[in-house]
Amino acid sequence: TNRTFGALGITVFEAMSRLAAAHGAVNLGQGFPEGLEPRAVVEAAAAALLEGPHQYPPMRGVPELRRAVAENGARFFGIEADWESEVLVTSGATEALAAAFFALLNPGDEAIILEPAYDSYAPIIERAGATVVPVRLVAPDWTLPKAALEAAVTAHTRLIVVNTPMNPTGKVFSAEELAWLAAFLVRHDLVAVCDEVYEHLTFDGTRHASLFGLPSARARTVRIGSAGKSFSMTGWKVGYITAERALIEPIARAHQYLTFTTPPALQRAVAAGLALDAAYFDGLRGALQERRDFLAAGLAEAGFDVLPCSGAYFLNIDISAFDAAGDDQAFAERLVREAGVATIPLSAFYRDKATTGLVRLCFAKHRATLEEAIARLGRWR
Amino acid sequence: TNRTFGALGITVFEAMSRLAAAHGAVNLGQGFPEGLEPRAVVEAAAAALLEGPHQYPPMRGVPELRRAVAENGARFFGIEADWESEVLVTSGATEALAAAFFALLNPGDEAIILEPAYDSYAPIIERAGATVVPVRLVAPDWTLPKAALEAAVTAHTRLIVVNTPMNPTGKVFSAEELAWLAAFLVRHDLVAVCDEVYEHLTFDGTRHASLFGLPSARARTVRIGSAGKSFSMTGWKVGYITAERALIEPIARAHQYLTFTTPPALQRAVAAGLALDAAYFDGLRGALQERRDFLAAGLAEAGFDVLPCSGAYFLNIDISAFDAAGDDQAFAERLVREAGVATIPLSAFYRDKATTGLVRLCFAKHRATLEEAIARLGRWR
Ligand SMILES: CSCCC(=O)C(=O)O
Ligand SMILES: CSCCC(=O)C(=O)O
Repeated sequence: TNRTFGALGITVFEAMSRLAAAHGAVNLGQGFPEGLEPRAVVEAAAAALLEGPHQYPPMRGVPELRRAVAENGARFFGIEADWESEVLVTSGATEALAAAFFALLNPGDEAIILEPAYDSYAPIIERAGATVVPVRLVAPDWTLPKAALEAAVTAHTRLIVVNTPMNPTGKVFSAEELAWLAAFLVRHDLVAVCDEVYEHLTFDGTRHASLFGLPSARARTVRIGSAGKSFSMTGWKVGYITAERALIEPIARAHQYLTFTTPPALQRAVAAGLALDAAYFDGLRGALQERRDFLAAGLAEAGFDVLPCSGAYFLNIDISAFDAAGDDQAFAERLVREAGVATIPLSAFYRDKATTGLVRLCFAKHRATLEEAIARLGRWR
Repeated sequence: TNRTFGALGITVFEAMSRLAAAHGAVNLGQGFPEGLEPRAVVEAAAAALLEGPHQYPPMRGVPELRRAVAENGARFFGIEADWESEVLVTSGATEALAAAFFALLNPGDEAIILEPAYDSYAPIIERAGATVVPVRLVAPDWTLPKAALEAAVTAHTRLIVVNTPMNPTGKVFSAEELAWLAAFLVRHDLVAVCDEVYEHLTFDGTRHASLFGLPSARARTVRIGSAGKSFSMTGWKVGYITAERALIEPIARAHQYLTFTTPPALQRAVAAGLALDAAYFDGLRGALQERRDFLAAGLAEAGFDVLPCSGAYFLNIDISAFDAAGDDQAFAERLVREAGVATIPLSAFYRDKATTGLVRLCFAKHRATLEEAIARLGRWR
């Protein structure tokens, strides 16, 4: 058995979902939305399925989806990319990340991740033979730790993972931070693997920007998006990468032996989704912002200290009023068992699993789900 | 850039398909079927899509598909497996193979592959840090090279890849060969990663059997199947693994960070497909056998020397009458350019790419496609 995978358990998200089911808890743990799937995209997929074809599409993805990825990036984020040579479709953002790490890293390399970090980065970086170098952002502001980043770079550093909008913090990287990162990449000859799956989910007028859009960083950036997040269908597993040729070519080679390709009917439906007009994306943002505000107000009302959130679909609460030691894991377990509400302890996003005093709640849920969670938390308190 | 993936080109299948398109050639190269998709499965997928849900299904796959995988194996191949603990759904057999290699190999390990071998095995085994040890089968009988296998084992050997029915040879491993392999696994403490995607595609009364069905090999076997092959929808990318707990657990960990999960609507449709009655599977076998016989007769008529084929959907022709040096690559290129028929040179399935004197033709095509190919080859000759 492999040393990396043999030592792992199931993800914290799956574990929490199971615990939630076992306790009849309202599940605000695992990040998936309720009731936001655009019907036009679902119907496009069903129509494409009935029509066929059903055989291998091109390994890099169907042309209409690659065109739509480039068009959507240009329309919403001012990013120009050549759909033929700079876009690759993958079986979800998870596969995109795996293909990027396997393609760009060699044994002995180092890869910097910013903690709190999504849980799939580290295992694949390690399985690719590289060393994970975690650098921490600090709550509640989560500002970019520039000095720590400088200190983390060695002669072996090959890449940095940048997740904006950021899970679990809700942070959206500022223009100033991205400019600093661009210079950082150039200064140290690094690549940025950018997990931008929440690109369309930003609030209060904040807008997502990509390192790929900065001329000095373009050749060093692997930008990753996902239909699961932009169309609220986390089960569809259609992702896409935008990167210049020198980076995307080896990634396409890794992709060709990880999954080879992605179901063509779903690809065509996602192409239709990316081509939807601004009203759809505004509507999604608006609906999520309303849900965020509803949950934040309910949590505050119930006496919880809620941190700010500008993007993605997670709110974090500071539990120090309830647990002086800030033991987020114990607290999350108490919440499931005693209150009947599942959350994710933020320590799950750190290599050392040390307590953080924070737990994460997903707000991308039906109003009724959020109401029930708020009521339960209020009663519990 | 990673050493393994940076050095690779596109697959021979994609390259040949592109060359075929450029020359208006009939494409008998890349292995994908024409006109065999069961409509009931397509409609089940469209219905499941319209119905939802669209969020992450369980990481191991939806229960109904895992049950159907176990049931189908019991019904057709006499294999008993516990669907809850011994079945894992993957995003195609390619991902299943990748997850198995990443999960079971450590740097320094050795993995035996039987050549001619499908082209995704070696790159992932290498990327997993292990060494590929090729052992050759010899045309036209492709019998198991027992002495060479014994000689290939070292203290570092961890696994052997067994592909039955076998692409590109059309060989179906005999009961005697499987029994020998089972003893070989036990004798040397090895695991068999069994690519059985063509399990339902066997001819002339030959039936597939799996090492997983042999009691002495069960705990050492990773059995892989695929909806792409059993339902003639190579683009769907739904695969499945059957293995005992000690093997499937680390593989599930790798899967959880390679793709995490697979579209639930397609999973449900494949469950419906696996539950189809024997008439469907008999019909598929019959249709393919008819196509095989039609192409084989046409090729013989046109003066080509056709090798036998008991399974999968490929015929091989011996080109020594046309090219004394047996340069299959040059011959395949001539066939595309001069005859307008795309094939795959068998050297593509060997590490050393040495000429083999054989080229492969896929016969899973419409009658009209095969007729046109035969006519063109006849004229060319
Ligand atoms: C793949 S399960 C994790 C879902 C998610 O993105 C999260 O909860 O952070
Ligand atoms: C993934 S393209 C290869 C298809 C195939 O299985 C073959 O042609 O051998």
